[in-house]
Amino acid sequence: MNADARQLLPAGASALAALGWRDGHLDARTEVLPDEVPVALAYNGISHAVMLASPTDLEDFALGFSLSERIVRHPLDVYDIEIERADDGIVVAMRVAAGALARLKESRRARTGRTGCGLCGVESLRHFGDDTADVAPCRALPTPAAAAPLQPAALQRAMAQLAARQHLHHATGGTHAAGWAAPDGTLRFLREDVGRHNALDKLVGALARGDMLAQGGFAVVTSRASYEMVQKAARAGFGLLAAVSAPTALAVSLAERAGVTLAGFVRGDRYVLYTHPQRLAGAA
Amino acid sequence: MNADARQLLPAGASALAALGWRDGHLDARTEVLPDEVPVALAYNGISHAVMLASPTDLEDFALGFSLSERIVRHPLDVYDIEIERADDGIVVAMRVAAGALARLKESRRARTGRTGCGLCGVESLRHFGDDTADVAPCRALPTPAAAAPLQPAALQRAMAQLAARQHLHHATGGTHAAGWAAPDGTLRFLREDVGRHNALDKLVGALARGDMLAQGGFAVVTSRASYEMVQKAARAGFGLLAAVSAPTALAVSLAERAGVTLAGFVRGDRYVLYTHPQRLAGAA
Repeated sequence: MNADARQLLPAGASALAALGWRDGHLDARTEVLPDEVPVALAYNGISHAVMLASPTDLEDFALGFSLSERIVRHPLDVYDIEIERADDGIVVAMRVAAGALARLKESRRARTGRTGCGLCGVESLRHFGDDTADVAPCRALPTPAAAAPLQPAALQRAMAQLAARQHLHHATGGTHAAGWAAPDGTLRFLREDVGRHNALDKLVGALARGDMLAQGGFAVVTSRASYEMVQKAARAGFGLLAAVSAPTALAVSLAERAGVTLAGFVRGDRYVLYTHPQRLAGAA
Repeated sequence: MNADARQLLPAGASALAALGWRDGHLDARTEVLPDEVPVALAYNGISHAVMLASPTDLEDFALGFSLSERIVRHPLDVYDIEIERADDGIVVAMRVAAGALARLKESRRARTGRTGCGLCGVESLRHFGDDTADVAPCRALPTPAAAAPLQPAALQRAMAQLAARQHLHHATGGTHAAGWAAPDGTLRFLREDVGRHNALDKLVGALARGDMLAQGGFAVVTSRASYEMVQKAARAGFGLLAAVSAPTALAVSLAERAGVTLAGFVRGDRYVLYTHPQRLAGAA
């Protein structure tokens, strides 16, 4: 790869030497891979979590993570976000409202253990139970009466635009994307990350920073729809989440309870509706 | 779906009513979706973490998780595994050696915060740094001198068998698989889960329970190869990890340091070798 080619690398990607096996031969080649960087999130000087993430749109990520995890209840509770590059990763230092910090400390007391990928900060089923109940969105979900039902073609349009514009994925083949579309399916926001949860958090943060969380529209993701993806969508107040791949049974159950319309296998001119179909025209 | 069809559901899947959009029409249909269940892991009565997982092969998951997370250093340190169904999930209660419990308590003291999906239990970059250094496998990785190099076709054979036999994925379209193949590519073990990390942990546990961790062979996964996937492979002592999709740049860096041969984009008769190619014939 020459210098010109390197300059074409998108943010969040690196070029590495590799060997390609093809037609019975190994040949030296340059591969473009997604960066994956430890990102430490700190609130008022207190380190809270380290996430492995694509090192792009980190302000969006920090704000979206804080909202999704309910560390803050309102975007304005995050006063300041500073990105500091360290030798072994990136520190995102946030200054947040005193009330948010009190909640964080309380949460840390209640959840002292290390935790798994599935459920950040939850170490017993009792806490998980608390968590599932806590899916009320920051704002009321738009009711079908308040918002005109979406046309089915809007989902196809949004998903096609998401697929066409995920530049980091085009360069690396190794990232997910989350997008926000206007009611007609025109894609307004797109965020990418090596992790699908991070991509959705970045999207939530981007909408919050643009004061767009209360706008009509819907979310599209290039991944499956697991429990946590629906939880993030519900907490952000998204009325509809459309995924290119399968939901889990638990995600459907949560979407049903949280009032989120969940669409899966959105591919070409087909998709499957699992919950609250009334948000789509012709599915009342 | 009639009663006969329901009986054909594989373990870890559920049938749900949904609406399918196709050719401009919505039709009622039954969809088979993967279960996703909160699984609480407890050691000697102390709840440690809740993971969202497919509720299958949970003994394998418990042992593999314990080894991957270095809660125990040897399979024999887990004396007993009990699976208890609760209303809101599953509790996997393990009895482990006293030394393991002491390490766990120490780890809990050092890592008091809630943590993200990326890096369980790590709340600052300093701890992450400790973690990256700690990839020495439970056993020495087989050196090319000690083991004959694999034939390139072995990777294709293993990946084809993995794809053909992931029954939960065939039924749901929503799960990952991790497999273990003999040196000639014949698949010996296969484990599935809604999470790719869980699938790999289940594979590690299955191998450990069969006293197979020290056997020659290699691992194949249906997912991407992120940092954590390579970390689990290195800690289990796998000499080679083959992924159907892309690695991250950090995963390549870790595989290089840990002595793991990392292959990505293993599709049909092609693949890309990122590290330690000497484990494959013709790539010295």
